[in-house]
Amino acid sequence: MKRLAILLALAATLAPLGAVAEEGMWTYDNFPSQAVAQKYGFKPTQDWLDHVRLSSVRLAGGCSGSFVSPSALVMTNHHCASDCIQQLSTAKRDFIVSGFLARTAPEEQKCPDIELNTLTNIEDVTARVTKAVAGLSGKDFNDAKKAEISRIEQSCGADTKIRCDVVTLYQGGRYNLYRYKRYQDVRLVFAPEFPIAFFGGDPDNFNFPRYDLDVSFLRAYENGKPAQVKDYLKWNAQGASENELVFVSGNPGSTQRLLTISQLEFLRDVSIPTRLKLYAELRGIYTQFGKQGLEQKRISQEPLFGIENSFKALNGEEEALLDKSFFAQKVAEEQALVTQMINDPAKLALYGNAWGEIAKAQVAYKQIYKPYFFIERRNGFSSELFKIARNLVRGGEERGKPNGKRLSEFTEASLPRLTQQLFSSAPIYKELEEVDLTFALTKLRENLGVDHPDVLKVLGKDSPETLAKKVIAGSKLFDIAYRKKLWEGGNQAVLASQDPMIKLALLVDPEARALRKQYEDTVEAPEKKNGALIAKLLFAIKGTSTYPDATFSLRLSYGTVKGYQENGQMVKPFTTMGGAFDRATGQDPFALPASWLAAKNRLDLSTPFNFVSTTDIIGGNSGSPVINSKGEAVGLIFDGNIQSLGGAFGFDPRVNRSVAVTTNALTEALGKIYRADRIVKELQGN
Amino acid sequence: MKRLAILLALAATLAPLGAVAEEGMWTYDNFPSQAVAQKYGFKPTQDWLDHVRLSSVRLAGGCSGSFVSPSALVMTNHHCASDCIQQLSTAKRDFIVSGFLARTAPEEQKCPDIELNTLTNIEDVTARVTKAVAGLSGKDFNDAKKAEISRIEQSCGADTKIRCDVVTLYQGGRYNLYRYKRYQDVRLVFAPEFPIAFFGGDPDNFNFPRYDLDVSFLRAYENGKPAQVKDYLKWNAQGASENELVFVSGNPGSTQRLLTISQLEFLRDVSIPTRLKLYAELRGIYTQFGKQGLEQKRISQEPLFGIENSFKALNGEEEALLDKSFFAQKVAEEQALVTQMINDPAKLALYGNAWGEIAKAQVAYKQIYKPYFFIERRNGFSSELFKIARNLVRGGEERGKPNGKRLSEFTEASLPRLTQQLFSSAPIYKELEEVDLTFALTKLRENLGVDHPDVLKVLGKDSPETLAKKVIAGSKLFDIAYRKKLWEGGNQAVLASQDPMIKLALLVDPEARALRKQYEDTVEAPEKKNGALIAKLLFAIKGTSTYPDATFSLRLSYGTVKGYQENGQMVKPFTTMGGAFDRATGQDPFALPASWLAAKNRLDLSTPFNFVSTTDIIGGNSGSPVINSKGEAVGLIFDGNIQSLGGAFGFDPRVNRSVAVTTNALTEALGKIYRADRIVKELQGN
Repeated sequence: MKRLAILLALAATLAPLGAVAEEGMWTYDNFPSQAVAQKYGFKPTQDWLDHVRLSSVRLAGGCSGSFVSPSALVMTNHHCASDCIQQLSTAKRDFIVSGFLARTAPEEQKCPDIELNTLTNIEDVTARVTKAVAGLSGKDFNDAKKAEISRIEQSCGADTKIRCDVVTLYQGGRYNLYRYKRYQDVRLVFAPEFPIAFFGGDPDNFNFPRYDLDVSFLRAYENGKPAQVKDYLKWNAQGASENELVFVSGNPGSTQRLLTISQLEFLRDVSIPTRLKLYAELRGIYTQFGKQGLEQKRISQEPLFGIENSFKALNGEEEALLDKSFFAQKVAEEQALVTQMINDPAKLALYGNAWGEIAKAQVAYKQIYKPYFFIERRNGFSSELFKIARNLVRGGEERGKPNGKRLSEFTEASLPRLTQQLFSSAPIYKELEEVDLTFALTKLRENLGVDHPDVLKVLGKDSPETLAKKVIAGSKLFDIAYRKKLWEGGNQAVLASQDPMIKLALLVDPEARALRKQYEDTVEAPEKKNGALIAKLLFAIKGTSTYPDATFSLRLSYGTVKGYQENGQMVKPFTTMGGAFDRATGQDPFALPASWLAAKNRLDLSTPFNFVSTTDIIGGNSGSPVINSKGEAVGLIFDGNIQSLGGAFGFDPRVNRSVAVTTNALTEALGKIYRADRIVKELQGN
Repeated sequence: MKRLAILLALAATLAPLGAVAEEGMWTYDNFPSQAVAQKYGFKPTQDWLDHVRLSSVRLAGGCSGSFVSPSALVMTNHHCASDCIQQLSTAKRDFIVSGFLARTAPEEQKCPDIELNTLTNIEDVTARVTKAVAGLSGKDFNDAKKAEISRIEQSCGADTKIRCDVVTLYQGGRYNLYRYKRYQDVRLVFAPEFPIAFFGGDPDNFNFPRYDLDVSFLRAYENGKPAQVKDYLKWNAQGASENELVFVSGNPGSTQRLLTISQLEFLRDVSIPTRLKLYAELRGIYTQFGKQGLEQKRISQEPLFGIENSFKALNGEEEALLDKSFFAQKVAEEQALVTQMINDPAKLALYGNAWGEIAKAQVAYKQIYKPYFFIERRNGFSSELFKIARNLVRGGEERGKPNGKRLSEFTEASLPRLTQQLFSSAPIYKELEEVDLTFALTKLRENLGVDHPDVLKVLGKDSPETLAKKVIAGSKLFDIAYRKKLWEGGNQAVLASQDPMIKLALLVDPEARALRKQYEDTVEAPEKKNGALIAKLLFAIKGTSTYPDATFSLRLSYGTVKGYQENGQMVKPFTTMGGAFDRATGQDPFALPASWLAAKNRLDLSTPFNFVSTTDIIGGNSGSPVINSKGEAVGLIFDGNIQSLGGAFGFDPRVNRSVAVTTNALTEALGKIYRADRIVKELQGN
């Protein structure tokens, strides 16, 4: 969940209503092949598109990847697999520090939590959903939409091998059914040492020039054996050249380019400042926690990295929204669209209230924001055990309901992913749990107030720290078998449980559910309904010559390998492996691992290392392959530059760049530094 | 420096251009006695005003207080003396935990850093300053102003017993010379335990109802003996009643009620978000640091309290500025004033450019904000040793210049306070120094970038942590004698010093000074010059029927003891001592000290404890006496309510309240809980 993993947002100035230049995260069923052909003389055919789509992989936890061998070897980022790398580590064998290499097939180790998806089919179901919600609004709109979506997903035949998601595109202007092949047996094949995967650390994060080997290789298994796949990307160890046309296939998580001004103001004035202050404080806590000892450093490094990454990305978004000229441009665009509508009586009748209704939803959101955020949203990720407890509590109740009436994370289509996480063997660290839950309860009290009835109900006479320690010390949820027992026992088992964490989750559940309902009915429903109206107005004016906001579903971007101007200087598009040695200081986070220092003389230091291109990406694109026009892998996306951080709201082709590792450097490092001959052969055997 | 100590800001909606209702922090030479008489039937005479002024005390570190006995017993807040209380503590005898009581005069202990000032005279020097800067702008304006002010201050005869400050009022519309008697031998007489001084801790901070005994008593000494003072406040143990007219005399630190919209936007969009994120992260670091052990908790509690207080106050300011209707009202006021000016050609000619020039200064400020903040402003308070090193480095150079050309903190008038701090015996904790300096260097690198020349110059190949540890481990500045040696040896001794902290301060000094110069010439000077023009326009329209923004100089506010509406409910103006027992949970920060639990049966639990009034105050007013019309002490200001936090920008008489301890509760607690008979007698002997 970090760097370019989902929930983090990148990209700057705005294109007008339709996409221009290399802007755009295109769905595979609406890719502008013609525009690419006109500009670059290469037209991606349907076969080319199908092959690239089927070679693309989504990591359900929030990343992207690609098959790079017929035996389902998956290339992704180190930071996309780092949860797994840490989960497989212990205080004695820390693969984050040492790296990981399976020299033989049996040494490949199963990742507790990773699920892979490949997109096998797209079906337009807009008519079905639109019909189901016709004439409805608020709660009724929401309920009908949910019920219809769950019917569609269920009839698609989801099971542990098939995943079906109805994807809401263009703010609800389009609904598509995405059918995936699902892999839940995923094993770790290779990871370098963290210090080179994330060389430069937080100070260099979202920066360029850059020198990171942010790679890991995984493998999808079926029936205990490596899966065999027809579509995979051939390996081109020559990488890409300056000005070459390249494509990026991946799963951008979330953009807000189609939001209205009232929604952007809510982000700027309420949501982003609240979250930034939380992240900043939690960052301080984790930073200091990591200084208490080597083990504390080990177990907190991974979450700290995630917090710092979220903080920096959100900070970039805030800066973009606080930029007066940027914001004025967004306002001007909205006004232009509204003016076009007003001047056409038929359109005015259809779409005239949409902006006002969305603005009203923001007022409603502001009123419930703090309780909703701190009781329902934030508590959900405050501690691993609490998250488990809440899922067990709700799972008991929700599974007793018809599929269409359940909370979205408990629909039949969602259960395989949910249970994979619920029964994950990933270690849960008591010390960190206490830190997280204490923090969550402290912020709950701080933001709602000491005398808020829900706060009094949760804390009683306890302090946040006392309560956190008590429920964690007494909880049996560390034990996977106990979790399974409660899950299988359903509602009755949950209600009978004396586990203090379960009891805590039960205690807050009525309020938490009520807030969620209120959010969904008074904020989400009018946003979706009226967002869809604005999207329809846009279609009416522009056709589908535009792309939908990112929704963590598969997209294809295109662009060229190209540097940019910064502070009046030209930033070149490539760095070299030798540059990493020049930048190294020997001190964290600018210390190269021993393996690199030892191999220096063997390396061709002029090998291109990282590079930038104008492809339009955002958080969730982490691990995406960079592909040339022959459909070969030439790079591996892992970041965006700092100028791209406002890209959540708009794309500036002059300075917005994605950052990738070259296949040249990957080949050089795998062969000469890591002696990973088995992988190199597999890649080149292609 | 916390709660209502200086640098923190309180108060809400706006009064129009002139002051209305009970709004106003009035200078003693322009107090609206007539308006008070008309409304309340009591007219403060000149004698009354002189007596109250001379009974008022300023704590130079950022608080207020009052003489309450002829032997110069000073009443102020616990949080105003808590630096001293902690400095006198050790791991074995922690007065923060146990409280402090000097049962006999010889047991009164000297505070290392406290300076007290009483305002003996006010002289209008506007004509002198105005003449000196006539026709100048930018650097020339600044230089001339500084030189003239330093001439005025020096001719006033400042020494260790007299302090002279030229105070800039009405954004430069008025310059007054404030002459103070200065006390640097100040001793601690009494302090309660921290858990009752700050009962409710951060969760209840800036809240009401409230139950805090936030008091300490100090004593001013002269020639080794208690000073004898003619003017002091008589003690009224009956306190105040609901609706009673009361006055608050103290030193509000800083308000921004007269700022232009461009200045408010700069605060809202640049300065406040930057500082909030810093405070939030540092809060996290200190919170976790305090969990590492009892000693770490002890030494970090006091600074953590300061950080949390600043964070909360600044957060309130941000909320006010992000409130659309609040901000729209500020805009409307400015537009009304501008319109009045434009419609009068003579005024237009004189004042027409003022707003534009201030707006340009904000653009200039934004360009240098990060380097200026992180190299000059923030580094200055990042670590105690660094602050000492910078003062030694600059002191060597500055004292070689004529008085009028020095940096403001090195003028002859400022040196006694500076050297008191420089040679303070207050303990400096190595562990905390490392935390602070590491944080400062990390944020410097993060905000300017790894490749910024100043960052490269400071860090070299070191990480922030390595460098911080190195310069702290090698520094002799822990030793007061060494500091004195360098101070006395002047520039030559400083340049010859091999102390690594001195060398670090020397290394960054050229850049830091250059940034300060740039700030003063391109931001501060145009703000002052044009702010003064706007103030003159206001005088031309309103006369002096308005009050200047707070500047940490003595002011008198008036109002009544009165509750307010909150969430549709009436909040009563008084709490009782019994309420503290009801609210206590036994867990920090809602645990009453053992002394209170033991004394419960002896107490009259119906004794009024804390109360609110409509008096207009802000950070810096901490420790101010609440005074009745007879000139008697009836309370002790220690906080504002949460609604008052936007008061930096405007006062809302409906909900803006100051929060004080009653003299009733002080008398009850001193007598029955602390058996502080010596103090009670001294108070009542009056």
